[in-house]
Amino acid sequence: MNEPWVKSSGDLVESLVAEVARLGGLAEAQIADCVDAVTRRDVPLAQAVVARDVKLDALQADIERRAIDLIATRQPTGRALRRSVAALKIAMNLERCGDLARNIAKRSLVLSESEPLTPLTRSIERMGRLVAGRLKEVLDAYTAGELDKATGVWVRDEEVDEHYNSLFRELLTYMMGDPRTIAPGAHLLFIAKNLERIGDHATNIAEIIHFEITGDVMSGERPKWDSLQRRSDTLKEEG
Amino acid sequence: MNEPWVKSSGDLVESLVAEVARLGGLAEAQIADCVDAVTRRDVPLAQAVVARDVKLDALQADIERRAIDLIATRQPTGRALRRSVAALKIAMNLERCGDLARNIAKRSLVLSESEPLTPLTRSIERMGRLVAGRLKEVLDAYTAGELDKATGVWVRDEEVDEHYNSLFRELLTYMMGDPRTIAPGAHLLFIAKNLERIGDHATNIAEIIHFEITGDVMSGERPKWDSLQRRSDTLKEEG
Repeated sequence: MNEPWVKSSGDLVESLVAEVARLGGLAEAQIADCVDAVTRRDVPLAQAVVARDVKLDALQADIERRAIDLIATRQPTGRALRRSVAALKIAMNLERCGDLARNIAKRSLVLSESEPLTPLTRSIERMGRLVAGRLKEVLDAYTAGELDKATGVWVRDEEVDEHYNSLFRELLTYMMGDPRTIAPGAHLLFIAKNLERIGDHATNIAEIIHFEITGDVMSGERPKWDSLQRRSDTLKEEG
Repeated sequence: MNEPWVKSSGDLVESLVAEVARLGGLAEAQIADCVDAVTRRDVPLAQAVVARDVKLDALQADIERRAIDLIATRQPTGRALRRSVAALKIAMNLERCGDLARNIAKRSLVLSESEPLTPLTRSIERMGRLVAGRLKEVLDAYTAGELDKATGVWVRDEEVDEHYNSLFRELLTYMMGDPRTIAPGAHLLFIAKNLERIGDHATNIAEIIHFEITGDVMSGERPKWDSLQRRSDTLKEEG
């Protein structure tokens, strides 16, 4: 194991973390681009997002294979084990973010064929910026190993939910006011939901970072659970 | 390692598989119950589904912890390693099915407060039966180790998508015809999408079983990719 050409377990873990960071960068770009595709009705950009998704899938599969191989052959323990498992799980969450960005890009292709709904796409843009910022923040926390920053993303999970709930109501109001907006409105509803899900993945990643660094599951009420309860109440009002 | 009270690695893998099968049974029950809650407007049943979800989360977390521990300390190779990784990944897919069932149950609570939309809930019921059947089939394939059965679920993925697309159109038609159905219709759109996602998870599980048994990634075109392409075309028609 001391041959210079054989990587140490520590090196393997760190190169895994670097690959996850790279996947994170790709996911961030996909999210920014799919939101731009919606707001600018940019068909080539939407097609580029759809086409690029396979790259993220391949990188996630590679990270998974390497993480499992590392755990099975190097038997890491303690922080090194948690760091390997965290890389595996964060990569899964990022790959899902990529899928959601691809779905948003596909719906933007449909929307580009109907009349623009400018005020609504502006609300989508604001929500897109919010969740993209949340993902950026949690990826900064991951690469810097900053627990406080990760916890910060976790406790502010409900902002995204509140944004989603207000967008949901805004969309329904539009659809009720003008039946011609029902079909594009339905696609915008799913786009809003996909953005909310990206926010959930940022929160999941914050929890994974917390466990990696401390070895403990996050204490206190999960904001996600809270907000789901609240969301259920809001849904009742909406229904 | 030969003490009778120390479990062999093989025993540990098989007890992991049994736990995954148990989680599968719980997920199947949640899906059946949430669809019944929608069609029968059964508030206590919906509340029971929401309350039971924590059980599935806890079981998935336990499976994950045990699978990682097994891989890190017993260093399984070949089929035993693939079987441990498959257990870990199938449990994640089942936990997501549980989340989707919980979301459907929550929306059924909202729907129970507005006028019933009987023909639409009947379409939801049919789609619910279809995806529940798909999940049952793939779990049978898992516990019996039957490759053909798993492949059968994989190749028929598009049926679920076609069902979803027709339900999507049916819902939009209703919403356009009567603005009072827009709010409940939006919840039914999300319920239909959640059922389609459960179908996707059944397909994912089929792929995981294939890899576990053969060591190869499924060959040929992924039906999911195909159907996503086609779905994008369908969405265009809908938009």
